[in-house]
Amino acid sequence: MQSPICAMLGIEFPLLAFSHCRDVVVAVSKAGGMGVFGAASLPPERLEEELAWIDEHIGGRPYGVDLIVPNSFAGKGEVQREAPSIPAEHKAFIAGLLERHGVDGSDLSLPGAVRSSLGDNMSDDGAARLLEVAFRHPIGLIANALGVPPPLMLELGKRHNVPVAALVGTRDHALAQVRAGVDILVVAGGEAGGHCGEVATMVLVPEVAAAVEAVGANTPILAAGGIVTGRQMAAAMAMGAHGAWTGSVWLTTAEAETNPVVKQKMLAASSRDTVRSKSRTGKPSRQLRSPWTDAWEAEGAPRPLPMPLQSLVSEPALRKVDKLSEGGHEGAKALATYWVGQGVGLMNDAMGAGQVVQDFKTDWIAACERLNGFIGD
Amino acid sequence: MQSPICAMLGIEFPLLAFSHCRDVVVAVSKAGGMGVFGAASLPPERLEEELAWIDEHIGGRPYGVDLIVPNSFAGKGEVQREAPSIPAEHKAFIAGLLERHGVDGSDLSLPGAVRSSLGDNMSDDGAARLLEVAFRHPIGLIANALGVPPPLMLELGKRHNVPVAALVGTRDHALAQVRAGVDILVVAGGEAGGHCGEVATMVLVPEVAAAVEAVGANTPILAAGGIVTGRQMAAAMAMGAHGAWTGSVWLTTAEAETNPVVKQKMLAASSRDTVRSKSRTGKPSRQLRSPWTDAWEAEGAPRPLPMPLQSLVSEPALRKVDKLSEGGHEGAKALATYWVGQGVGLMNDAMGAGQVVQDFKTDWIAACERLNGFIGD
Repeated sequence: MQSPICAMLGIEFPLLAFSHCRDVVVAVSKAGGMGVFGAASLPPERLEEELAWIDEHIGGRPYGVDLIVPNSFAGKGEVQREAPSIPAEHKAFIAGLLERHGVDGSDLSLPGAVRSSLGDNMSDDGAARLLEVAFRHPIGLIANALGVPPPLMLELGKRHNVPVAALVGTRDHALAQVRAGVDILVVAGGEAGGHCGEVATMVLVPEVAAAVEAVGANTPILAAGGIVTGRQMAAAMAMGAHGAWTGSVWLTTAEAETNPVVKQKMLAASSRDTVRSKSRTGKPSRQLRSPWTDAWEAEGAPRPLPMPLQSLVSEPALRKVDKLSEGGHEGAKALATYWVGQGVGLMNDAMGAGQVVQDFKTDWIAACERLNGFIGD
Repeated sequence: MQSPICAMLGIEFPLLAFSHCRDVVVAVSKAGGMGVFGAASLPPERLEEELAWIDEHIGGRPYGVDLIVPNSFAGKGEVQREAPSIPAEHKAFIAGLLERHGVDGSDLSLPGAVRSSLGDNMSDDGAARLLEVAFRHPIGLIANALGVPPPLMLELGKRHNVPVAALVGTRDHALAQVRAGVDILVVAGGEAGGHCGEVATMVLVPEVAAAVEAVGANTPILAAGGIVTGRQMAAAMAMGAHGAWTGSVWLTTAEAETNPVVKQKMLAASSRDTVRSKSRTGKPSRQLRSPWTDAWEAEGAPRPLPMPLQSLVSEPALRKVDKLSEGGHEGAKALATYWVGQGVGLMNDAMGAGQVVQDFKTDWIAACERLNGFIGD
């Protein structure tokens, strides 16, 4: 395909697949797109293992790595030195919520037992260690999922000739990224799974494309947010994007390590079954609705803590919920949730990741032909 | 253009323009699209006047009429008999909000002085009177902006051979409309101005298109929500729509009777300057953010009343704000707001409504060519 994204990344089809699952990364890259391994919550030694496995299986196809290095967070650089303090209100709220669903939360020590790799990685030191691991491998892209990438990431990208991508949810953030020198903008609408802004993809993509052009830049744009089909990818490209960045659609593939209970919920969900909430990480992120998210959204619920503290509250509990739900525990099955975008309403069939890429291509072409068909003689 | 919408409505370009301003309706229809006159809040005698004026000026081009006849509302059929009761809390809140901005609200009688035509029109009797007026004119489309059209609207449409359109914000509502027999679905994403759902256009359009096809129907779809340019219209059509339904983009045209203060705010706004709030009508509607909307969204604000009562609270105050703001009153200028979608971020130049139609056409073609350009040899 004739897209600057294809030229820049050395890929055939400008479809990027964010996934925490190495098998998805490999399958997508082998099918002509590019898998991007989500490493934000991994300790460096696990990242090393995962990338070594990918190198071994991907047959030389390009792949990327995605990190979360925000510009500001509670306890920046101090996460390891001092245990953050979780208010008693939050502990009691979670204990009550779990108990109402028959889940014993007494063994969850908050935050003692659970080392927060995400918290560590979001400190300057932690991010540097992850970057060091990533650049030891033949990566073809490095992405930052929250805010302007730190200078170190941009420097390493330049030095290793690896394009740097950054996620943005507003026009002004996009322009800040262009000024900072990122190579690719991932423009994510509010319908996206995970961290997201409020402006919809349909508006944000043309708004950012126009703003980038207006400042005389030519930074290519990957559209994100709600995109789970080739027709949506084509739509975004008609509006000014040069490709698509996707996440949710891979969660229900055969290769994904998604909790099977959540996978089934996703396949059954409509586009209305998600909620944008601060309850998982402390920043607004879109996730599957469940009694867990409903409880956090209800009146009287505690206010989510700032990032990364809220993850220390929610993740241990949700990990326990996942584990129990896989064993058939009814209360845990009800509570189980995961990040996913509104596109979940279009994800109705489980299939292999390579097949998803093929379907995107076919659907892209069909959408283009459909559009051409409107033009009369 | 080869679209079932063009064939059904007898128009050249499947762009529908919802407007409360008859001049916009005429200009759009004359330019090859279709103007749809928003009559929800007009008394029948005013609708008669407006449609007579349109008939006189539109040169035989087709136009439509849009009403709001919800399936359920507070005081249905009784609005005229009994004055609805506005809680003292709401009156005091508005009085305080106006006072803080130097606006004297003592002459606003709530709801006595202001007859609510919207409330009247939303009763069965009121709707029947408006429909009678509308069908006395050579209208080419009748649309219902909220819920399944009442049987009377569908019957009159059939009898007069006038297609009936209905706005929907979810897949399930779309299927209910198809079952009820509407001729055109207006599929509106959560980025739309005015009443809107939560699912974004980028997801809702393909979701509804697939659902309609799955039940073996071929009801054509107009995409709505955030669409203010031809490239977005093309994008929606690549995803399964057969045309676009627009509203916001006409508010800043030369013909629009929008408060000039609000018009300037819209031209300056980014896509982040809107809010989806129940504070204007009692149902979620998207509008320009201002200290007025901020106050209603703030903690401790009274809960908006059910439709149509909240309009009886908000409209008299906002009408006064509009009037004072046009005279240069600083507090009123700050408060002034109106319904608009996130597409406001792409509305940066005031121009004539006919020119907007031409720009849509040019931009549609450019987007189509852009998409074709991605296909390599």
